[in-house]
Amino acid sequence: GVKPGLPPVLAGSHLDTQPTGGRFDGVYGVLTGLEVIRTLNDHNIQTQHSVEAVCWTNEEGSRFAPAMVASGVFAGVYELDYGLARADGDGRTMGEELQRIGYAGNEDMGRPLHAYFEAHIEQGPILVEEGIGIGVVTDAQGQRWYELELTGTESHAGPTPMDRRQDALLGAARVISLVNEIGLAYAPVACATVGMIESHPNSRNVIPGRVFLTIDIRHPEDAVLSQMDQDIRDGVEEISARNNLTGKLEQIFYYAPVPFDRSCVDAVQASADQCGYSSREIVAGAGHDACFIAQAAPTSMVFIPCVDGISHNETENIKPEWSTAGANVMLNAILDKAGTV
Amino acid sequence: GVKPGLPPVLAGSHLDTQPTGGRFDGVYGVLTGLEVIRTLNDHNIQTQHSVEAVCWTNEEGSRFAPAMVASGVFAGVYELDYGLARADGDGRTMGEELQRIGYAGNEDMGRPLHAYFEAHIEQGPILVEEGIGIGVVTDAQGQRWYELELTGTESHAGPTPMDRRQDALLGAARVISLVNEIGLAYAPVACATVGMIESHPNSRNVIPGRVFLTIDIRHPEDAVLSQMDQDIRDGVEEISARNNLTGKLEQIFYYAPVPFDRSCVDAVQASADQCGYSSREIVAGAGHDACFIAQAAPTSMVFIPCVDGISHNETENIKPEWSTAGANVMLNAILDKAGTV
Repeated sequence: GVKPGLPPVLAGSHLDTQPTGGRFDGVYGVLTGLEVIRTLNDHNIQTQHSVEAVCWTNEEGSRFAPAMVASGVFAGVYELDYGLARADGDGRTMGEELQRIGYAGNEDMGRPLHAYFEAHIEQGPILVEEGIGIGVVTDAQGQRWYELELTGTESHAGPTPMDRRQDALLGAARVISLVNEIGLAYAPVACATVGMIESHPNSRNVIPGRVFLTIDIRHPEDAVLSQMDQDIRDGVEEISARNNLTGKLEQIFYYAPVPFDRSCVDAVQASADQCGYSSREIVAGAGHDACFIAQAAPTSMVFIPCVDGISHNETENIKPEWSTAGANVMLNAILDKAGTV
Repeated sequence: GVKPGLPPVLAGSHLDTQPTGGRFDGVYGVLTGLEVIRTLNDHNIQTQHSVEAVCWTNEEGSRFAPAMVASGVFAGVYELDYGLARADGDGRTMGEELQRIGYAGNEDMGRPLHAYFEAHIEQGPILVEEGIGIGVVTDAQGQRWYELELTGTESHAGPTPMDRRQDALLGAARVISLVNEIGLAYAPVACATVGMIESHPNSRNVIPGRVFLTIDIRHPEDAVLSQMDQDIRDGVEEISARNNLTGKLEQIFYYAPVPFDRSCVDAVQASADQCGYSSREIVAGAGHDACFIAQAAPTSMVFIPCVDGISHNETENIKPEWSTAGANVMLNAILDKAGTV
């Protein structure tokens, strides 16, 4: 940056992954940030604002829960002490481990940024199925997670007549269908999923007396997410009453929707157009460092397709031309924000 | 019996129980058989056919699987060698253990019986809820057990749009509802239960890619059981297709319905009427020694209520007056068949 007083444009992502994760989730974004800077240097391009690359520590939360700790601390979502005190399964903290490997820096948390861009594989099937090269990410979905316990009466599958049953698994089945209907009702961007179920006593010839399940709902608009929340509460109450069950529903996690900065989104869109790539607006369904940084600085993301929409899996893959396209879009969007000399 | 050449009337049940079973399931029937004989002796009542009491070994199958081994061997359902070779968790066989405790007799298997009666607690809620003293058992339900594996595609609960999902748990929910509808369609005597479910990978934010579940259907008429079977096969096929899943349905167990002998059923009904007890016809929902003996001799059962319909539970309980009523009904039914002098 020729004007050192101006806040920088930051680009990057994370290098950590899931236990059975792949080679591109996160890594692609870090390398793209570096590649943009190398390209600027190779061509001796001067910018008004500095351009910096970043690798956020512990985005996945696989070793140190929760997820996106470093970007969260930078954005002021988490306290620094909280972040450093996160411990792994062996009791070692993130702070100690950063010291041990020499990665503990003295960067100011929350210093001003002019803009933040993050390139990432989509981790979903939309771009690859539609044959589109670039996802212009407008929003990150808000999320609410719930735990539900349905309690009925455990009894013998033979001598207990159908009309006298308090079958907790039947109630759970109706909740699973309800959650799906709610997701479909607010489609295409809404998601609603029951991912986990445990039934007790889980025996072939015993009517289940108790079922635990989880619900995950997502939408980019908080008002819609609240409406989905109400639909779930009403539905669970109705299903519990109709099936003669006790239902205990608890929201255990809330993650607000993130609308990305319009000028940053526009910069990404203009860059894709300029490069001649096919593109579409898209909503980020998963959490990303950009979702936290967006709370502290103008932010957007660039999605590229991934093969079969598969991620968090060793088979995760991309094509070289997709990688190139994403990096070119990042280059122009960053130049747009950083300003050339 | 004053005519030793005539085959005997047999009465009894079993003494073994479940790991957390109660004091009446089985025990009540053995004691009732003994009490009837004592009463006949106390009053010096002579019968044409001998009256004998029996305690069948290993009805529950808790120590030596499968269930109802001794009555099954007696009725010719199982070979004697098969029964004796059943092994417990420590590898000890039923034959060795019967020798060790001195219970290995030399009774002829399958010798002719004039009739068999078994008194038993209902193990269900019908009699106690309706305030009826005696259940006149007309049939034992047939059973078919299935295992179903539904396979879809495991994917991220965030970036995977609702209309692109292959959610195995959603398919399972629809199967659970279907099984319930089939049970209700053939009510009041039909039962249809999903007792066990396992979902993979069972993570809050992953769409389940594979679900295993069990189905248990019961009905006293084989033709109806076959129709229920067809309904399940058609429904699972339709649900699999509609939800874009692969469904693998396998019947793992078939237990034919048992219609009890009409003259024995009539003897029980006449006895209950003669004693002035309230009664109703009822279908046995669980397996009993009587179900196997019915394949070799005229058979029926006498049910008495149990508190709250609860069985296979340490809290299992009955009231003294229920016990007395059942024994009186057994006495008259046995006298009817054995013939007085």
